[in-house]
Amino acid sequence: MRVNLHEAMRRAVEASEQARGRTSPNPPVGAVVLDVAGTIAGVGATQPPGGPHAEVMALREAGERAFGGTLVVTLEPCDHQGRTPPCSKAVIEAGIAQVHYAVDDPMALASGGARTLRRAGVVVTTWHDPSAVARGPLRSWLHRQRTGRPHITYKYAASLDGRCAAEDGSSQWISGSASRARDRLERSRIDAIIVGTGTVLADDPWLTARLPDGSLADHQPARVVVGTRELPPAARVLDDAAPTILVRSREISAVLDALGDRTDVVLEGGPHLAGAFFQAGYIDRITAYVAPMILGAGTPAVVGAGVGNIDQAHRFDCESVEMLGEDVLISLVPR
Amino acid sequence: MRVNLHEAMRRAVEASEQARGRTSPNPPVGAVVLDVAGTIAGVGATQPPGGPHAEVMALREAGERAFGGTLVVTLEPCDHQGRTPPCSKAVIEAGIAQVHYAVDDPMALASGGARTLRRAGVVVTTWHDPSAVARGPLRSWLHRQRTGRPHITYKYAASLDGRCAAEDGSSQWISGSASRARDRLERSRIDAIIVGTGTVLADDPWLTARLPDGSLADHQPARVVVGTRELPPAARVLDDAAPTILVRSREISAVLDALGDRTDVVLEGGPHLAGAFFQAGYIDRITAYVAPMILGAGTPAVVGAGVGNIDQAHRFDCESVEMLGEDVLISLVPR
Ligand SMILES: NC(=O)c1ccc[n+]([C@@H]2O[C@H](COP(=O)([O-])OP(=O)(O)OC[C@H]3O[C@@H](n4cnc5c(N)ncnc54)[C@H](OP(=O)(O)O)[C@@H]3O)[C@@H](O)[C@H]2O)c1
Ligand SMILES: NC(=O)c1ccc[n+]([C@@H]2O[C@H](COP(=O)([O-])OP(=O)(O)OC[C@H]3O[C@@H](n4cnc5c(N)ncnc54)[C@H](OP(=O)(O)O)[C@@H]3O)[C@@H](O)[C@H]2O)c1
Repeated sequence: MRVNLHEAMRRAVEASEQARGRTSPNPPVGAVVLDVAGTIAGVGATQPPGGPHAEVMALREAGERAFGGTLVVTLEPCDHQGRTPPCSKAVIEAGIAQVHYAVDDPMALASGGARTLRRAGVVVTTWHDPSAVARGPLRSWLHRQRTGRPHITYKYAASLDGRCAAEDGSSQWISGSASRARDRLERSRIDAIIVGTGTVLADDPWLTARLPDGSLADHQPARVVVGTRELPPAARVLDDAAPTILVRSREISAVLDALGDRTDVVLEGGPHLAGAFFQAGYIDRITAYVAPMILGAGTPAVVGAGVGNIDQAHRFDCESVEMLGEDVLISLVPR
Repeated sequence: MRVNLHEAMRRAVEASEQARGRTSPNPPVGAVVLDVAGTIAGVGATQPPGGPHAEVMALREAGERAFGGTLVVTLEPCDHQGRTPPCSKAVIEAGIAQVHYAVDDPMALASGGARTLRRAGVVVTTWHDPSAVARGPLRSWLHRQRTGRPHITYKYAASLDGRCAAEDGSSQWISGSASRARDRLERSRIDAIIVGTGTVLADDPWLTARLPDGSLADHQPARVVVGTRELPPAARVLDDAAPTILVRSREISAVLDALGDRTDVVLEGGPHLAGAFFQAGYIDRITAYVAPMILGAGTPAVVGAGVGNIDQAHRFDCESVEMLGEDVLISLVPR
């Protein structure tokens, strides 16, 4: 079936979403090869480090059908000989006639893929709405390229009135089963989870990524616990289901150091640690699971973000709103 | 232009929304008359008490085109001789052949309109989805018929983390201009606004309904201030732009008494009075304007709702979610 470029790009983004969390330090890219008739001949995504890039995966699947065809790819093809040969070369050798890519490669070393392709006679077209693609699976990697810092999402579940635990500390379950399932899936695609000692001492969470049947996912994010208090040796985050990093400090910079090259990072609270990250200006996205309930008491979702007056509020833009089971999932990004 | 029944009902609901706030103690009903060709011949809504009902307004506009036509109406036509003659009689006299109504009339006195119409040979059909219409402009009136109580909406604006004022008490403006405009319009369509003395003492609000140009709307809801503290004589709620009722008590029952037959009532806070209403189980809807900002300190949106444990949470269902300017408007109704 003939697909239009829009649909091809959607499929490329979808493929890259599957690769998210497995490509670091490379970006999770998605690619689709259309044959001369405009039919999908190959779909690919970045493989784990050392493995082929998305373009090569899609070209391999397309085989001879790539000749004279079109490549639709979320990121500008690389022009850089790293652990794998440059994608620009593979694209040219496959006889691709046209390339549509969404986001310019911001990496100095690798950029220039578009130029190389054009020199070889390939028609290269940029995308009409690169920012829509840049908000997708590539977001964290792009953020790291631009700022040198990990991309930190503050993720929490709270009642409509902003309480992330009831007065007696109970918080199971504020969010509904659909939200919790989404959250478990998300954990298997990120590089690290951060929490404060307060959350570990209050809730003793595992912080592992689990499959729907409850078993451990292949990919586990690193667990990062921040704070000066001692954890009990039996704390679940200290088991060996996933690596755990203890940051015995209250400095945000110490957390960033400990994260190393981990890029897609989720801060799971609690409220005091989150407040400190907001105050430091290090929250790059908020993912709030808002449950249709009122508590009227208990732990607020954020405490101590350094805001005294409404004019000092940490302001964001609403990126998306979704009804998820009984909950409302709100995603905000910085202005 | 020929319209289908679905579109006709949508127009009837739309017409009734314009009448909301002006019909009490009658329900805000909307009606559409289609001529034999299926074209809209008349649209009507309930007029202020003593004036014609929606069906009569639509029939008048349709004139002779009503003959052999179809009436689409949000509520079962009344069969009751009150200040105005029964609508069933007017419908029959106009020669309407078919009636589609959405919601059964729950009032014992007036009900029976459908039966009278059928006896006169009119084909009467009930609606496939009455609850969708019942959630609309009729909602408060239906609630009053069923429970004998006013319908109370808790409406507030808060940051995503549930703060309705910053640490220093500032709250102008948490919500964006689109939310505030919606809110001003809404005020002109309700019967009363309730606030606690705390809100009056902190913010000195006018609590008046205003047109987009800032001038006072024709219809002003009663302002109800609840609490034992004395208000300063210069408090804006004591001006004569709208009637004001002081309920010098902390009993919710005293508030209900003071409301009299006012039916569509909005509780505008603050958090303590709202908490008391939640605890008493008297919140029939929540309308939350959620602003894309984090405060991390300041007044929570609800305080003291009598919830100690997560299992005691006041649980609601999400009725609708909407992006409104920069804000998210979330509407919840009781489970
Ligand atoms: N619903 C949800 O999504 C969710 C998620 C997480 C937690 N929670 C709830 O939150 C509650 C725990 O709250 P919490 O505030 O104690 O948790 P927290 O924020 O995880 O822990 C606070 C601790 O973080 C450490 N910390 C490190 N750097 C900090 C900094 N710069 N500023 C402030 N603190 C820093 C401090 O530990 P030291 O004192 O050891 O130095 C501080 O006491 C529990 O009831 C839990 O259920 C809910
Ligand atoms: N963003 C928003 O949508 C919004 C809306 C409203 C208010 N606010 C903010 O809320 C803050 C004021 O908070 P607040 O809690 O003081 O306001 P409040 O809830 O309006 O007032 C509290 C007072 O209500 C009276 N009251 C009557 N019945 C009560 C009952 N059953 N239980 C408890 N109190 C009862 C009491 O007054 P007496 O002591 O006189 O008996 C109590 O002190 C201000 O900062 C204001 O800006 C924000």
